[in-house]
Amino acid sequence: MEEKELSKLPEFTFGKLSTAEGRLERVKTTGLGLNAQLSLNPLDPKENEPIEITVRIGLGIAVKAVTLHYTTDGILPQFNRENLHSSTMTLAMQQSAIEWDTLQWSYLEKWTAVIPGQPEGTHVQYAISAITTTDQVIYCPYFSKENIDIDSSLLNRFNSDNQPQIYGFYVDNETIPIWLREAVIYQIFVDRFAPISEKKRLATSELSDFLGGTIKGIIAKLDYLKELGVNCLWLTPIFSSSSSHGYDPISHSIIESRFGTEADWEILVKEAHQKDIKIILDYVANHFSDRHPSFKIAQTQKDSQEYHWFRFREWPDDYQCFFDVPSQPEVNSENPELRQYLISNACQWLEKGCDGFRLDYAHGLSQAFWSIFRNATRKLKPDSVTFAEITQPPDFIRSFTGRMDGCLDFKLLELFRDFFAFNSLTVSQFDRQVRQHLAYFGNSLLLPSFLDNHDMNRFLWVVKGDKRRLQLAALCQFSLPSPPIIYYGTEVGLSQLREVGRLEESRLPMLWREDQDKDLFFFYQQLIAWRRDNNLLWRQSTQPQPLIIDEQQGVYVYGCGNYAIALNNSPQGTTVTLTEGKQGSLVLKTQSEVNWDPQTGNLDLPAYGGAITELTH
Amino acid sequence: MEEKELSKLPEFTFGKLSTAEGRLERVKTTGLGLNAQLSLNPLDPKENEPIEITVRIGLGIAVKAVTLHYTTDGILPQFNRENLHSSTMTLAMQQSAIEWDTLQWSYLEKWTAVIPGQPEGTHVQYAISAITTTDQVIYCPYFSKENIDIDSSLLNRFNSDNQPQIYGFYVDNETIPIWLREAVIYQIFVDRFAPISEKKRLATSELSDFLGGTIKGIIAKLDYLKELGVNCLWLTPIFSSSSSHGYDPISHSIIESRFGTEADWEILVKEAHQKDIKIILDYVANHFSDRHPSFKIAQTQKDSQEYHWFRFREWPDDYQCFFDVPSQPEVNSENPELRQYLISNACQWLEKGCDGFRLDYAHGLSQAFWSIFRNATRKLKPDSVTFAEITQPPDFIRSFTGRMDGCLDFKLLELFRDFFAFNSLTVSQFDRQVRQHLAYFGNSLLLPSFLDNHDMNRFLWVVKGDKRRLQLAALCQFSLPSPPIIYYGTEVGLSQLREVGRLEESRLPMLWREDQDKDLFFFYQQLIAWRRDNNLLWRQSTQPQPLIIDEQQGVYVYGCGNYAIALNNSPQGTTVTLTEGKQGSLVLKTQSEVNWDPQTGNLDLPAYGGAITELTH
Repeated sequence: MEEKELSKLPEFTFGKLSTAEGRLERVKTTGLGLNAQLSLNPLDPKENEPIEITVRIGLGIAVKAVTLHYTTDGILPQFNRENLHSSTMTLAMQQSAIEWDTLQWSYLEKWTAVIPGQPEGTHVQYAISAITTTDQVIYCPYFSKENIDIDSSLLNRFNSDNQPQIYGFYVDNETIPIWLREAVIYQIFVDRFAPISEKKRLATSELSDFLGGTIKGIIAKLDYLKELGVNCLWLTPIFSSSSSHGYDPISHSIIESRFGTEADWEILVKEAHQKDIKIILDYVANHFSDRHPSFKIAQTQKDSQEYHWFRFREWPDDYQCFFDVPSQPEVNSENPELRQYLISNACQWLEKGCDGFRLDYAHGLSQAFWSIFRNATRKLKPDSVTFAEITQPPDFIRSFTGRMDGCLDFKLLELFRDFFAFNSLTVSQFDRQVRQHLAYFGNSLLLPSFLDNHDMNRFLWVVKGDKRRLQLAALCQFSLPSPPIIYYGTEVGLSQLREVGRLEESRLPMLWREDQDKDLFFFYQQLIAWRRDNNLLWRQSTQPQPLIIDEQQGVYVYGCGNYAIALNNSPQGTTVTLTEGKQGSLVLKTQSEVNWDPQTGNLDLPAYGGAITELTH
Repeated sequence: MEEKELSKLPEFTFGKLSTAEGRLERVKTTGLGLNAQLSLNPLDPKENEPIEITVRIGLGIAVKAVTLHYTTDGILPQFNRENLHSSTMTLAMQQSAIEWDTLQWSYLEKWTAVIPGQPEGTHVQYAISAITTTDQVIYCPYFSKENIDIDSSLLNRFNSDNQPQIYGFYVDNETIPIWLREAVIYQIFVDRFAPISEKKRLATSELSDFLGGTIKGIIAKLDYLKELGVNCLWLTPIFSSSSSHGYDPISHSIIESRFGTEADWEILVKEAHQKDIKIILDYVANHFSDRHPSFKIAQTQKDSQEYHWFRFREWPDDYQCFFDVPSQPEVNSENPELRQYLISNACQWLEKGCDGFRLDYAHGLSQAFWSIFRNATRKLKPDSVTFAEITQPPDFIRSFTGRMDGCLDFKLLELFRDFFAFNSLTVSQFDRQVRQHLAYFGNSLLLPSFLDNHDMNRFLWVVKGDKRRLQLAALCQFSLPSPPIIYYGTEVGLSQLREVGRLEESRLPMLWREDQDKDLFFFYQQLIAWRRDNNLLWRQSTQPQPLIIDEQQGVYVYGCGNYAIALNNSPQGTTVTLTEGKQGSLVLKTQSEVNWDPQTGNLDLPAYGGAITELTH
């Protein structure tokens, strides 16, 4: 690869986990204390399947007995042994493995119990207690104080004074609605997408100001979106908020007046659905604005219900908040009333026509909560969907199987950018890692894919405006099984003015006039049409089959059903010969210079050129 | 724990692995390339048991096919597919798992094949090849050059220019000779133990000089050893060597003339066996002296057989050597003639009455070699034993199950010293880690235990001559299932003059006269007698059962069969009450101040006092 000038900038997609130090800290932290994360087998228990629960016992803890407490009647597990009327059942967990950990220079134990198979619809809730060798009773998760100096936001979050964490899941045969597998999603940053009057927008110099986008504006652009071909819109938060992005909700029911009214929403839903376009709302459950009425009550009335919705360290002014920003207090997802608030508001929006939710920073709330959330929303609207934003490693993400329909694929994002933008992966590395990644997740958790979003430099900016490279990456994105997401404006060449420091740099106003790149739009139109013509491939979660891996030329060709996807990720043109004995046709090309000779099987790929060829055997 | 002045000194028992950096490097290294270490399941295949072979595929490698090549007729696996007469069988390995590794931020793959069960006595040999996604053929172990900058002696050793490593093992029902389970081993550093004339020894000021110990001297002390009660001697190397320690052999057949003659050896064996004392020889196979005749041939004749016994990087002066010391060239344990040389010499010593081998730096040679070594020696002398020095983590050590009868327990050494000498473990930590450790290994690999040896500060030196603490540690050592080793002189209070810098500091001449600590000797005598009276416990590998864990008092009491072992690892005296409803008797005490009241069950333990109590239910 020649273009070393596009050397890899630090990307902080995974926060602390973006650095070697952060990863080491995470691995060490995972090996501490009593920890039942990633502990369910199977991940998504079906009717009558026995459920193996495992707890890891690592550094700092020595136990002599471990007990699993569980209920199947929807009542929280009780720990009072004298209550004979309790429906809580207990199982003695058994040491099932001792493993050596060279990094920690320590053994780790696993203790396991098996909950018998349950009928469809059962809500299983459980907690784990242990007795240490010094006769202390501890509840999972537990970390001894001597080790707590290892900083980790996840640890602190779930380790509140040796209180038992209640884990939970539903035994069900829920499947992911097919429409989500077939979706081509368009992410609309509401304030930036379609102002009623473009003038107003242009007059604003400050990017974090309100730039005037509205729901009415979106309605006005539905024809445009239909023409583009997408069949699902994801709107960034539309509820009351004092910011342009809306990720600090003051309400979960009232539409921000700048964006419009509930009447506007009704029209949007109606017209979108008439065009077979679904609408997904961005739902921020992890943290509220400090101006949210419930937080105001919590902060002024310590004896209120709302006090327990949040995580006060020292009431009223010291509380846990999102990235330590005091204006964004984080919720306590274990509180029943808070759960009820979040779920009932979500359900209202389903009743008002919304088709599902993109769940912001979902790992800030417990998996037990999300099980209940999905169960409630699915019950109300069986084809509604949930997908999460979780910037965590794949093993953690995978544990949301059965609790979410999908998770945004930040790992694939990293691979896309490393390969197509930063050239820090070779073809064989990219091929291997993509296929490992898709195989690791299988078919029961969808991973919507994206090249960029509102929290990072746009892909087109990273490749210095070279749209050939964007097209190449998009071609790859759209020919992998996961539902692709287009960040608004990408299809017409929207980029940035400056490098992201302020995230607002990647949230410029949508291009609507002659500055739209019509060729790029046409390319995306074709790409979307091709994807939607081949829904069967995505329903079956068709994996890429490598056909040509040419490290020197930077060429990657892979099979996708009966298609061959050919990518030349290098600044030199080349010709590849597709397998003999097959004839085919050129279905799509990223540039006019792409040429296909079906007689010889020769495919000419210019620099950063790509193509889809249909092969007939 | 009060005595913070005994703060933990850096101990380098595990070399680079003694530091956090070294451990991290090891973990990272393990996740590289194609790696079949620790890959056998079961570890020690018995007759007709199917054998699962797994290869890990980590960073830097992308494969599309993996093949296992194996033979069962003793012939090395062949890779030439056109040789129809080859007895080599092949199995296509299948991807059996994809795992996520947060530390490496990468997926790792496992590929597996199952060799069908084999008859007793079968020598299975196998190798693994793979085809990368770029159609390169590679052999296991393999590490791509881009990752090889991670330094690791183990990696370099087995990664010679993409040549296949031949792995191998015997299918057998061999068990560990019972006498080794019942052994109390006494380590004799030959040059320092018993000179013919003590005068000569005392005249020497320089500790790395020869101090005159001989085989005849050992013979003269057999009565002493019998009186002490040990039933097995481990002699440091007795073969020709130019050093006082002998760990740089010039021969594996000729006895160093300073130590005596073969006639002396014959007498030693005869007299020891008459006293029911076994003799184990220290066998240095990993490296030779550069004055060894075979190395001299190798270094002068490139076309000699011997050239291939060693690992020349650039002949004649650049070769792999032990800890980079040029006078200690390392061998190539894959060479058939070298194997033959090592095995036939070992067998000769078995024929000459030796009862087994302590195998120096055994991880420097391949496991396949040790399988053959044990098979050959066991065939010749069915109750001969092998135990290895392997300063590696437990998971690696455990993989020697079935290839060795035992491995010196460096991990337990670390726990003993951390708890009893450095006070860096609490009682519950020590209890937990000891029990995890013993449970991890189970019963099929013996772990001879020790408090110190010739390569580190003596335990008594570390505790500043406080023999109460030595006695306490010894009491614990002797009441765990593993056969205990006493480093010569420990039983009479031999310590050091200076801190170990030069290892010779811990190799002072044995005390023979009035400077012997008779009380300590008496204690050891009692301890050994008790251990030997209770052989059934060690045959059954009886694990400690915690009875009292008192963090504050530093008291640890555990059950061992019908005994309670009580340890007060603190500078304050205390009284513990053993479980009511039991009556018993005091069997052994470390100090006269230990008192036991069978009526009340009260046991008075002075500072650093310990006792064995026999409980009758």
